[in-house]
Amino acid sequence: MAAERVKRARYVGAPAQRVDGFDKVTGRAVFGADMSAPNMLWGQVVRSQHPHALIRAIDASAALACDGVAAVLTASDVPGDIRFGVVVPHQPVLCSDRVRYMGDGVALVLAETREQAAEAARLVKADYQPLPAVFDVEEAMRDGAPLIHDDYPGNVVVHHRVRKGDVEAGFAQADLILERDYATQLVEHAYIEPEAVLALPGRGGGVEVYGSIQNPFSCRRAVARVLGLPLAKVRIVQCDMGGSFGGKDEVMSAMSARAALGALLTSRPVKMVNTREESLVESYKRHPYRMHYKVGVTREGRITAMEIRMVADAGAYASQSPFVTWRSTVQATGPYEVPAVKTDILAAFTNNTYTGAMRGFGAPQAVFANESLMDEIALELGIDPVDVRRLNGYRQGSVTATGHKLDEHTVSLMEVIDRATEAAGWREKRQRLPLENRGKTIVRGIGMACSFRGCSLGAEGVDATGAIVSVQTDGSVIVSTGLAENGQGLRTIFSQIAAEELGVDIGRIVFLPCDTSGVPDGGPTVASRSTIMGGNAVRDAARKARRALEDAVAQELGVSSEEIEAGFEEFSAIGDRTLRVGFDQAVAMAWNQARLMASFGWHQAPKVNWDEHVGQGKAYFTYVYGCQVAEVAVDTATGQVRVERLTAAHDVGRAVNPQAVQGQFYGGMAMGLGYGLLEEVELKKGATRTKNFDQYLIPTAMDVPEMIPIVVENHDPYGAYGAKTIGEPTCEITAAAIANAVAHAVGCRVRELPLDMERVLLGECLRVARGERGSERP
Amino acid sequence: MAAERVKRARYVGAPAQRVDGFDKVTGRAVFGADMSAPNMLWGQVVRSQHPHALIRAIDASAALACDGVAAVLTASDVPGDIRFGVVVPHQPVLCSDRVRYMGDGVALVLAETREQAAEAARLVKADYQPLPAVFDVEEAMRDGAPLIHDDYPGNVVVHHRVRKGDVEAGFAQADLILERDYATQLVEHAYIEPEAVLALPGRGGGVEVYGSIQNPFSCRRAVARVLGLPLAKVRIVQCDMGGSFGGKDEVMSAMSARAALGALLTSRPVKMVNTREESLVESYKRHPYRMHYKVGVTREGRITAMEIRMVADAGAYASQSPFVTWRSTVQATGPYEVPAVKTDILAAFTNNTYTGAMRGFGAPQAVFANESLMDEIALELGIDPVDVRRLNGYRQGSVTATGHKLDEHTVSLMEVIDRATEAAGWREKRQRLPLENRGKTIVRGIGMACSFRGCSLGAEGVDATGAIVSVQTDGSVIVSTGLAENGQGLRTIFSQIAAEELGVDIGRIVFLPCDTSGVPDGGPTVASRSTIMGGNAVRDAARKARRALEDAVAQELGVSSEEIEAGFEEFSAIGDRTLRVGFDQAVAMAWNQARLMASFGWHQAPKVNWDEHVGQGKAYFTYVYGCQVAEVAVDTATGQVRVERLTAAHDVGRAVNPQAVQGQFYGGMAMGLGYGLLEEVELKKGATRTKNFDQYLIPTAMDVPEMIPIVVENHDPYGAYGAKTIGEPTCEITAAAIANAVAHAVGCRVRELPLDMERVLLGECLRVARGERGSERP
Repeated sequence: MAAERVKRARYVGAPAQRVDGFDKVTGRAVFGADMSAPNMLWGQVVRSQHPHALIRAIDASAALACDGVAAVLTASDVPGDIRFGVVVPHQPVLCSDRVRYMGDGVALVLAETREQAAEAARLVKADYQPLPAVFDVEEAMRDGAPLIHDDYPGNVVVHHRVRKGDVEAGFAQADLILERDYATQLVEHAYIEPEAVLALPGRGGGVEVYGSIQNPFSCRRAVARVLGLPLAKVRIVQCDMGGSFGGKDEVMSAMSARAALGALLTSRPVKMVNTREESLVESYKRHPYRMHYKVGVTREGRITAMEIRMVADAGAYASQSPFVTWRSTVQATGPYEVPAVKTDILAAFTNNTYTGAMRGFGAPQAVFANESLMDEIALELGIDPVDVRRLNGYRQGSVTATGHKLDEHTVSLMEVIDRATEAAGWREKRQRLPLENRGKTIVRGIGMACSFRGCSLGAEGVDATGAIVSVQTDGSVIVSTGLAENGQGLRTIFSQIAAEELGVDIGRIVFLPCDTSGVPDGGPTVASRSTIMGGNAVRDAARKARRALEDAVAQELGVSSEEIEAGFEEFSAIGDRTLRVGFDQAVAMAWNQARLMASFGWHQAPKVNWDEHVGQGKAYFTYVYGCQVAEVAVDTATGQVRVERLTAAHDVGRAVNPQAVQGQFYGGMAMGLGYGLLEEVELKKGATRTKNFDQYLIPTAMDVPEMIPIVVENHDPYGAYGAKTIGEPTCEITAAAIANAVAHAVGCRVRELPLDMERVLLGECLRVARGERGSERP
Repeated sequence: MAAERVKRARYVGAPAQRVDGFDKVTGRAVFGADMSAPNMLWGQVVRSQHPHALIRAIDASAALACDGVAAVLTASDVPGDIRFGVVVPHQPVLCSDRVRYMGDGVALVLAETREQAAEAARLVKADYQPLPAVFDVEEAMRDGAPLIHDDYPGNVVVHHRVRKGDVEAGFAQADLILERDYATQLVEHAYIEPEAVLALPGRGGGVEVYGSIQNPFSCRRAVARVLGLPLAKVRIVQCDMGGSFGGKDEVMSAMSARAALGALLTSRPVKMVNTREESLVESYKRHPYRMHYKVGVTREGRITAMEIRMVADAGAYASQSPFVTWRSTVQATGPYEVPAVKTDILAAFTNNTYTGAMRGFGAPQAVFANESLMDEIALELGIDPVDVRRLNGYRQGSVTATGHKLDEHTVSLMEVIDRATEAAGWREKRQRLPLENRGKTIVRGIGMACSFRGCSLGAEGVDATGAIVSVQTDGSVIVSTGLAENGQGLRTIFSQIAAEELGVDIGRIVFLPCDTSGVPDGGPTVASRSTIMGGNAVRDAARKARRALEDAVAQELGVSSEEIEAGFEEFSAIGDRTLRVGFDQAVAMAWNQARLMASFGWHQAPKVNWDEHVGQGKAYFTYVYGCQVAEVAVDTATGQVRVERLTAAHDVGRAVNPQAVQGQFYGGMAMGLGYGLLEEVELKKGATRTKNFDQYLIPTAMDVPEMIPIVVENHDPYGAYGAKTIGEPTCEITAAAIANAVAHAVGCRVRELPLDMERVLLGECLRVARGERGSERP
């Protein structure tokens, strides 16, 4: 095929400037809160006053009497189903009879100004009958605990199991059995831009919503469901995004559906913007996990069996808990061959803020636990932590705990371990630092952690995505996809791929915002699937568009299409290179021949399978591997941990845009550092006590250390130009590596995140850190 | 193919409610002037004070000093080329050095309010040096006339020729030679909604324009050219349209480019809305023609030769004059076999308002002349006008004056003549009325006229168009095309076709407004090409989308796709009809199989050809035929003509929506009636004297007579479900039929439109009408 004769790699693999960078730095980018429309109303949600209560009545009379108030809407005004949800459609857009967490909305005030809406919202009186509430996930599963959803006995949202091999026999073969408990905290995505939408009445009784919406298609499903409209009458257009990290899904569905409801019922545009305080109360968080590991190892360090139980706090609604915990299920044992595995992972409802998707999606918790455990094994056996991992780690042809033989891609765990540890000077520092720490208040340590991660959705659901590449009559090119630019750089990556495949200057490419009416549903922008899935779809679309041009040139030159070779900005005849046609000229030929120069691209993920009863199958069609090394300094007087250096090696398959990949390294590690050391949303009886960023601490520039990104490239047969996944892997390992480094520095282990000053100083750590020994037991 | 097994005709051929009707009658439709945006400026054009002048300087200081004025822009602010144009890019968006008609813009004032902009515009002082001007088209072509464009000698825009057979020999064979002159007037489209746009600064330095834009893609080319932007960075979205009739093309390109210029330079939205007075001054009109016919006929009435010369007043810019006069060239002899033809059709520049596309596009003028001429031949030879036409008219296999043998479609001229004249009671009334008229002040007459008309663009240019049909995951369907809904009912027709081809309820279809970033350039929405071209494209897209569903059902049922039959809202296996799958279920299957359910459709017109030197070729790939009969009452005391009845038979190929087709009959005839009797834009030295609708008379409900639509259907092999063209044919015949009826009533002929009271009373008519005879000379 002529199509395969393109030998350029001008853009794929080369750094490319962000195509949306100039707009962002000049303020020309349009974020959700920048949107407004003439004759617009402001919407303000009235949220629950109780973590769990029945609603007896809602009195809006005082609010309605306020200046500027146009309407106060409640669940009874919803024309469709009040409930939405990606997995379980049971989350009310406005609660009719019952509230289940303090972020639940009970009414929507619409007023001429934001201030009037907020003022009136305070006067909406809901008459609640408080119900017994439960805030502890283990308590929630006990007999007699208040049921949060009547159709979920024991409040259990989901229970994933892995049953592989004979666990009892495995433990019997072990020379050492360790049992450890780990726990992680509730954290916030902390996107810099709080939730914002503008909803407009649309044609034919439909609605349009513009906003900071991570997954326009799931948002559309929610809005359509709530309004009782067909999907085609609901148009969701994504604005520029001030961050998302998995966090602008259900919370945006709720806000969009509320604003759209207001627009539909008042025939006026409705704008809603959350304050940071509201965002912290309402928006879903990353699941806190409690994890119990039992592991058997031989004295050489080979793992014989693992038994794992994790419980995730789902909060008030199912949200993505079934999927989040499923990923934990696949990754629970880490990237290690374990002959016998018994894993039980549950999520349960509480009356806490609900939890859902966040960068890492079930992995950071599991990685923290299993990578801490690896170090604990090494410590007990007196082996270097790297050696424990090299002994057990996946190699070509290994079989995962969930029964997948890894033989279709390059299993590069050893390579990333070697690259990261060598670059960090692991062997030397691991020996030297304990000696240097003696007698010091500030002690240093080095720790490492690894992970493997399935790319894209895996057996979670339908995995396909589309793109449109449309060559305009002047040779400029419009590209659009059903995947969304959430700040990760998708527009740039896809522009590079389109330019590469068309063989044109990237300046020709114009990337459209994601618009649900303009592109086919390409599934959610999650699971680090954009490049591997969308990249392939864009490539497919661009290739088809290029073929139309090749056919036009062939017709004009009187040769067959197979004889046309595409070069950069030109086409030529293979037999006679003097027959050259510039790209613009080829476009003119195609237009004169009345050819269609636009095409849908479509990419289906390779088939996967999963047996939920035993947790066995081909969970994902490919995986990535990563290793990070953290170097820390711990002030034993205060417990403060300072990360001094992070070294990361990740196999990305192919770095389409090396700059963007490095950006993902930096951002992922910074976020992992916050997770490891600083961040925690505190709830008290379901009420958010961490009200703003003065209390919720995210890393500042001063907290971020030197970071060494090592981009490993092993072409993946299913990748886009070999490229696979990088957005989440960089974020899921860092906390574990830091925890291992802290253990190395202070000689004891903190098994609960974050490793803030209190946790590091308290308990065993305090004693050890102030004692003679400067490092973990040898 | 399974695709061909669809035997339904549930929507195609059945009346369908306008899909945009409810929005329009409830006020929910959004027209150009309804658009606004926060922080918006209003733009006001400063127009020329002279029909022809050099611009020495423009002084904006007084305007800039006015309250609320943000900027005054002139040609020097244009970043790209100041000139645009569909055929000849020579029309300035803002004039730099010279004005050529009084609608020319010389500056653009941007202010906070519309009133401030208008006020300031009056204070912009342009220093003009008047140039000699010319307002008569024949004078313009004489030696020594002022040149309006330096590169057009003799001011000739275009000169089309037809050279067929030996004209001298033809005249030598004739028993009778007639020479006649006819003339038509300057008329306005009189769309109810004047021009309006809103331009917004777009992403990446681009712009978006929303407005009453008939041809979004030609508008985009103009805006991109003026702003120096690639097409992909200019987005034109069509609003609901309050009429266009060919009239919202170049004038909207100018307004859009001006507003976009303002938006680009101020980084603020810019709105512009013309008043009716401004619209009448600036917007292009239908060309006035002067036509000289020489015809030779045998005493039996058979035409032996024709020599034709027409001169069209192009006004100040070329606009679509080359194409408009080309259509006149093809239709100049009418639907009659003429062995020898010599046609010369010219358009020339003057300093009048420029002229361009208007419903009929070069046909109403030619039809008025040649159909008047047919009646004059009949009168001279004492033959019934119908018989003259039956004798000479096209039949299957006839060859047109431009050399096209009509053998690919049903040549239905005789059928439409028979149907219309029989329904009107032609023979009886034609005899009776002259007798009844004797001694009456109010006299009655019956007249008829015919035409043939090439469908779509013909050899004018590239003729292809696209559509997108996208089945959503809930089974609702989004349809979009590059053709525009200008009120003609395209959305409804295309929704019917999509529903028909997908086999679904039409309620599932949602039709998007035309958006240049969302669909491929499908050429202009002109030439009554929407149904025949776009209908085929929608059908193609829907068929492909349906095949994806058939494939999904086949896979699920374990049969081949060829064994799947599509029914209404369901699919079934041909071999086993108990295997039935509902449409929604099929969509779910396709989604679970990760199939793309969206497709581009594309339709290329069959090949045509044209030799411009001799005016011979296959001008169009198919034609339609029509005949109208007018019955009039003429008050001989006042000259007032009252049309009492219009009967029209048009072959539409297939009436996809019979209601819409009838609507085109009614609207076309009403417009033709206005052209025949009432409408005329008067210019005096280039200045518009007809300032508003109190002076420009369009037919009211009281002027519109009983109308009898006869829809003739002869399936066209190139049609969409056999459907071809109806928008323009109904409008191009009426004035001629009325003129012939008036001649029948009063016994003399008016050879100049409109047949207003003055023209009917004056000259020969006055004498004859007041004389004894009640009808034209027998």
